[in-house]
Amino acid sequence: MSEVKKVVLAYSGGLDTSVIAKWLQDQYQCEVVTFTADIGQGEEVEPARAKAHALGIKEVFIEDLREEFARDFVFPMFRANAVYEGEYLLGTSIARPLIAKRLVEIAEATGADAISHGATGKGNDQVRFELGAYGLKPDVKVIAPWREWDLLSREKLMAYVDEHNIPVEQKKGNKSPYSMDANLLHISYEGNSLEDPWTEAEAEMWRWSVSPEQAPDQATELVLTYKNGDITEIDGKPMSPATVMEYLNKVGGENGIGRADLVENRYVGMKSRGCYETPAGTIMLKAHRAMESITLDREAAHLKDELMPRYAKLIYNGYWWSPEREMLQAMIDISQKHVEGKVRLKLYKGNVIISGRASDKSLFDEKIATFDDDGGAYDQKDAEGFIKLNALRLRLGAKQK
Amino acid sequence: MSEVKKVVLAYSGGLDTSVIAKWLQDQYQCEVVTFTADIGQGEEVEPARAKAHALGIKEVFIEDLREEFARDFVFPMFRANAVYEGEYLLGTSIARPLIAKRLVEIAEATGADAISHGATGKGNDQVRFELGAYGLKPDVKVIAPWREWDLLSREKLMAYVDEHNIPVEQKKGNKSPYSMDANLLHISYEGNSLEDPWTEAEAEMWRWSVSPEQAPDQATELVLTYKNGDITEIDGKPMSPATVMEYLNKVGGENGIGRADLVENRYVGMKSRGCYETPAGTIMLKAHRAMESITLDREAAHLKDELMPRYAKLIYNGYWWSPEREMLQAMIDISQKHVEGKVRLKLYKGNVIISGRASDKSLFDEKIATFDDDGGAYDQKDAEGFIKLNALRLRLGAKQK
Amino acid sequence: MSEVKKVVLAYSGGLDTSVIAKWLQDQYQCEVVTFTADIGQGEEVEPARAKAHALGIKEVFIEDLREEFARDFVFPMFRANAVYEGEYLLGTSIARPLIAKRLVEIAEATGADAISHGATGKGNDQVRFELGAYGLKPDVKVIAPWREWDLLSREKLMAYVDEHNIPVEQKKGNKSPYSMDANLLHISYEGNSLEDPWTEAEAEMWRWSVSPEQAPDQATELVLTYKNGDITEIDGKPMSPATVMEYLNKVGGENGIGRADLVENRYVGMKSRGCYETPAGTIMLKAHRAMESITLDREAAHLKDELMPRYAKLIYNGYWWSPEREMLQAMIDISQKHVEGKVRLKLYKGNVIISGRASDKSLFDEKIATFDDDGGAYDQKDAEGFIKLNALRLRLGAKQK
Amino acid sequence: MSEVKKVVLAYSGGLDTSVIAKWLQDQYQCEVVTFTADIGQGEEVEPARAKAHALGIKEVFIEDLREEFARDFVFPMFRANAVYEGEYLLGTSIARPLIAKRLVEIAEATGADAISHGATGKGNDQVRFELGAYGLKPDVKVIAPWREWDLLSREKLMAYVDEHNIPVEQKKGNKSPYSMDANLLHISYEGNSLEDPWTEAEAEMWRWSVSPEQAPDQATELVLTYKNGDITEIDGKPMSPATVMEYLNKVGGENGIGRADLVENRYVGMKSRGCYETPAGTIMLKAHRAMESITLDREAAHLKDELMPRYAKLIYNGYWWSPEREMLQAMIDISQKHVEGKVRLKLYKGNVIISGRASDKSLFDEKIATFDDDGGAYDQKDAEGFIKLNALRLRLGAKQK
Repeated sequence: MSEVKKVVLAYSGGLDTSVIAKWLQDQYQCEVVTFTADIGQGEEVEPARAKAHALGIKEVFIEDLREEFARDFVFPMFRANAVYEGEYLLGTSIARPLIAKRLVEIAEATGADAISHGATGKGNDQVRFELGAYGLKPDVKVIAPWREWDLLSREKLMAYVDEHNIPVEQKKGNKSPYSMDANLLHISYEGNSLEDPWTEAEAEMWRWSVSPEQAPDQATELVLTYKNGDITEIDGKPMSPATVMEYLNKVGGENGIGRADLVENRYVGMKSRGCYETPAGTIMLKAHRAMESITLDREAAHLKDELMPRYAKLIYNGYWWSPEREMLQAMIDISQKHVEGKVRLKLYKGNVIISGRASDKSLFDEKIATFDDDGGAYDQKDAEGFIKLNALRLRLGAKQK
Repeated sequence: MSEVKKVVLAYSGGLDTSVIAKWLQDQYQCEVVTFTADIGQGEEVEPARAKAHALGIKEVFIEDLREEFARDFVFPMFRANAVYEGEYLLGTSIARPLIAKRLVEIAEATGADAISHGATGKGNDQVRFELGAYGLKPDVKVIAPWREWDLLSREKLMAYVDEHNIPVEQKKGNKSPYSMDANLLHISYEGNSLEDPWTEAEAEMWRWSVSPEQAPDQATELVLTYKNGDITEIDGKPMSPATVMEYLNKVGGENGIGRADLVENRYVGMKSRGCYETPAGTIMLKAHRAMESITLDREAAHLKDELMPRYAKLIYNGYWWSPEREMLQAMIDISQKHVEGKVRLKLYKGNVIISGRASDKSLFDEKIATFDDDGGAYDQKDAEGFIKLNALRLRLGAKQK
Repeated sequence: MSEVKKVVLAYSGGLDTSVIAKWLQDQYQCEVVTFTADIGQGEEVEPARAKAHALGIKEVFIEDLREEFARDFVFPMFRANAVYEGEYLLGTSIARPLIAKRLVEIAEATGADAISHGATGKGNDQVRFELGAYGLKPDVKVIAPWREWDLLSREKLMAYVDEHNIPVEQKKGNKSPYSMDANLLHISYEGNSLEDPWTEAEAEMWRWSVSPEQAPDQATELVLTYKNGDITEIDGKPMSPATVMEYLNKVGGENGIGRADLVENRYVGMKSRGCYETPAGTIMLKAHRAMESITLDREAAHLKDELMPRYAKLIYNGYWWSPEREMLQAMIDISQKHVEGKVRLKLYKGNVIISGRASDKSLFDEKIATFDDDGGAYDQKDAEGFIKLNALRLRLGAKQK
Repeated sequence: MSEVKKVVLAYSGGLDTSVIAKWLQDQYQCEVVTFTADIGQGEEVEPARAKAHALGIKEVFIEDLREEFARDFVFPMFRANAVYEGEYLLGTSIARPLIAKRLVEIAEATGADAISHGATGKGNDQVRFELGAYGLKPDVKVIAPWREWDLLSREKLMAYVDEHNIPVEQKKGNKSPYSMDANLLHISYEGNSLEDPWTEAEAEMWRWSVSPEQAPDQATELVLTYKNGDITEIDGKPMSPATVMEYLNKVGGENGIGRADLVENRYVGMKSRGCYETPAGTIMLKAHRAMESITLDREAAHLKDELMPRYAKLIYNGYWWSPEREMLQAMIDISQKHVEGKVRLKLYKGNVIISGRASDKSLFDEKIATFDDDGGAYDQKDAEGFIKLNALRLRLGAKQK
């Protein structure tokens, strides 16, 4: 165990990270700095201050990162139409690099030589935190208590709590049986009955959205305004990135939008079942594609589509702070310069239905596309040469056989 | 105009191809052979026989290709989870190579030296028919009347009909205002009011599905059985490929599944608005991904995902009968050898909701994935080395800056 | 034939484009503007002025574009390590977009409504000129005489020359039997005896380089200095991009570097045999890879490698002025910010041999790479976890079988 | 340390693996089975038998795997034109999966529960051995002594040798200062003075080839015959795969062919300098591309080119025995069915110069490619439509700006 003087801990204020805060002080005989961020998880972060102080922490950082999270992480990712394995909108993955960045920045600011987090040794989050930290501060020491200690059962953990007099909230008993994570983009559920992929998720598990069955019988209509590939207004009202997401989460959740139940492949090697609620993200993905459909060049769109799975995988695997993600981002961002205009859509019982798109930068040319007389905008005879030359190699190939 | 002795025409029995049948005889002074196929478009094909005879055609081919279409074209494509531009399930695209193949085979069988079709010079279908034909019979002559003749308005066409006494059905008047295409996989709509991408599709346009609003208030549950990546049973009942599709179209359509409204990029260069109903395909895509999610290796799945857009584009652009499509198909097919088991899902008002997946060949290992004690199935300490080595280059890169 | 008032012609001063200049005036009854550029082809361009005047041309543009060509086209392409079909360094392809750009700019400046060029209907160059022109000036009219006129044999062409009194140089007789193209990056040969791919190219054909056999028995050593992925100095002497290329062409050619003899796939569908001399380019490709080998991150390099064939194909096919090329360029350029330092190499009888690379921004860490004791810079035990987690999916897969 | 009963060791007969054989017996108190293979490294393998017996080994496996190595590993890899990072021909990488396969098969045959190898914790080979073993026998125990023991300096190793009376050859003193590896495909050098990438490799280091300077002044000409993408004859003489490689190594080495000096990116994270001699491989790569150039369809070739870096990376990283490599191989192999014919080439002082290619399955059509009158084989007017439709999106895009 190498020597550590001061460690910055990603601290939620909950039981696990409270135990870690104490354990770090005991085990490493080091000072602990806590860092708690509001990234839209829907819980108060201010109470973490008193809890930290009660654990003997002197330096406590509590920050509202919602706008930075939406603007610099979620929005750039949605420019890419990123989806992991065809289904997962990367809600947890995209929050980790921001936390890693702030952990490292606070370490720099407070003179800490280490960071620590509460992610287990089986999951992707440890990878995301640590690759981010190493990529931003190459000599940082990372402490991952779940890979080090022997408090691997809840009983041992609670014994440690009692033994060290760690203040915990009384509501221990009613805790959700699922392992959960939440931020502006989503809330996720893992573990418990979900560990059998044949078992349906319980109706009571879901927290952010009603089921499609329980959603209103009337559709909700929205008009989203885009600029440079990002939403800037809803129904004509300018909104900041975080506000856009909060608003879409609300109306999306009310209309049963954005539930997903899937088995995904973790970077650490196993398959895992997860359930997700991503109301805003589900709307944003569909609407962004619609906006691109009339403003983005065909081959630009196809290039993006072909590289999207790789981009999504990079984020899923924790490589946000890598040169290859920056390269792809540069490519994606430059494609969005004319992705602007309006998309009209309806939310109805789990469905996001596009009903219109318009743009001053539209590449849709009615005159050319029409089935009616186009007045010569397009010469149908050109198609023969187009087909003939494209067919030439196929004809030579057919003769080869 | 080169000399043609006999031409095989893709003949629907409708007005346009009837005019073409007559025009070919007049213009090229050649014999015409008609070919009409049932590929699940939902209309009787047998009446085409009498119509063809009335036009003076001697050789008339009428065939039921539904099983071949589903088995050899649709099913292989769904093994790839193919979607064009994130939305379009390739319903029209996948039918054309089969028609092209039969046109060429009939040309060989009847000693014809040319083929002909009724696709216009603005669309993708001309490309798909012709690339297919050239790729299978390199010296074939292709006649595309819409690119040659001057009957470019409905008035001129009707004048030709009258002048040549072409028998047409009386229902001329009530014709749908949309340009439509249908087969086992979908029905499509283009033109008319859809030519403005801001205008919502009319409720009366849709033919195969009810709207989500009008779908039943009760979900329909299904269990699909897969073998080698293909559906072989529904609710425990073995079914042929075409039967699978007919059944899923029926229950899907009843539950408002599979409508899409989008702007796509045509191979010939313009953007075009299309609306589609693809009930079976929508269910099949979601279910196949679920089946793969527990039976397919992570990197095999990611390789498929990265190549899928290219595969979909090949089919969209008309390159089914090309060496590159065969190469990708070989790659995809070999990946499906263990994609087997069951997927349970619910259809509800436009939603396809996966509620379970199970397989004897499952790669999902509950023992490893569990949040509880795993008895040593996975050593959390391994994660440290995994992260450290993956981070090494990032750390060196950070020092470079 | 649509009406044309003024056309800008890419004019070499040679026979073919002189005929075109006259033919355009006759056929279209329009004014002709000539544009002749020095892009390093090794021939005087100034004489084109008098020839143009003799043909009755009033507006004559003659420009030295060597620096622009090297700096804005060749150098950016070499940042990508671009090679078409594993062998071809894109010498002709990369010059066309610059010519297209100037044609269009001169058309704007002179109020011309059309452009014209001397490329045939079988080759790639027509595509490159025209896609460039359409992409920069969408309403431009393009006149491609070789696709229009009937002067398809040399006899007819010479008859036209005589008939119209077109001034041609006396050296007509000694003309090379090959179709050639040259610029700073290469000289190419096609046609004649090369049309049989089994026939070896004649020794007398080659113009820029000696054969390896005739090259000096002593190697020439060079040190190239890089900054942002571009060569800025040779042997410590700062040089402009065009000077770099001229210098490397000279020493490369003297050492038998850069000959290639290959069969390539044209965009218009056929295979074609070409021979190329690309001395500077051959050295630059090898040296740039060596510079990247110590300064570029692994995954950044691999991403570049995977996209390189697509980037090269875009340039080969004429899509320099396309959004997808711009996207890829943005991705490539951002990767080059630390590609700087020195590469030492030897040129010897056709071989480019790297003998050293060094950089202040090197990612090569001797302390870590060493076979000797590394003092803990790398913990070999980390490798076990790395392998174990990477193997996990393979082990689960092996059990599946 | 888990219990091990019997371990199969990849045994070279050299010092290091002899120490390992003894150490395994001591440390694990287990039986050791040795496995020594001739894969063309150019050293006798039979002497390993006596050495193993002297170490107390009872089960000794000595095998000639040259044909299997060439036929089932090297040849399939060359069908892909595989090159890692633009330069490295994967000589070491491709041998490891065969060794891993035999280790596992011998473990099955002898009832061993573990395998062991002499690769260090810093290199790629440990990964290749172990991923292969885990992928073929998921429950195998792998012992990697270099990651476990404390014999990390040569002194400690020699002390162990003396202490345990391990028989070593007398030539200890003259050992090459480089870390080397050899098989039919290549010989490699790492370490020592190569650890500074600015330092040129010493002339005496190279073992298989003369330098270009010392190669004959006369070129050597060869004709290679291909079938299904593999070489089957040289100069008209049928040869087995291993014989092909031995022959080409000989003539290649004599002509100074196949030296490479490069810095590569290891999978375990660091950059490393390596020098390689790959005479046969260098010839095979160039010749195979030439054979494909006239027999492989353009888009098939481009698809291969785009996926090649990924395929090469899989092999470099040790994933030969993975589903994704099998998928890519299926794709590559199907592309080779018509890659047959002859390639003529010259070897001269480090250069491999293609001088001809011919095939009964050639796609090169002189009639179409010719600059002379083609008698209508290709209609130049088709090019206009081809360009016009390809330009349509670019023109719409230009108007957007």
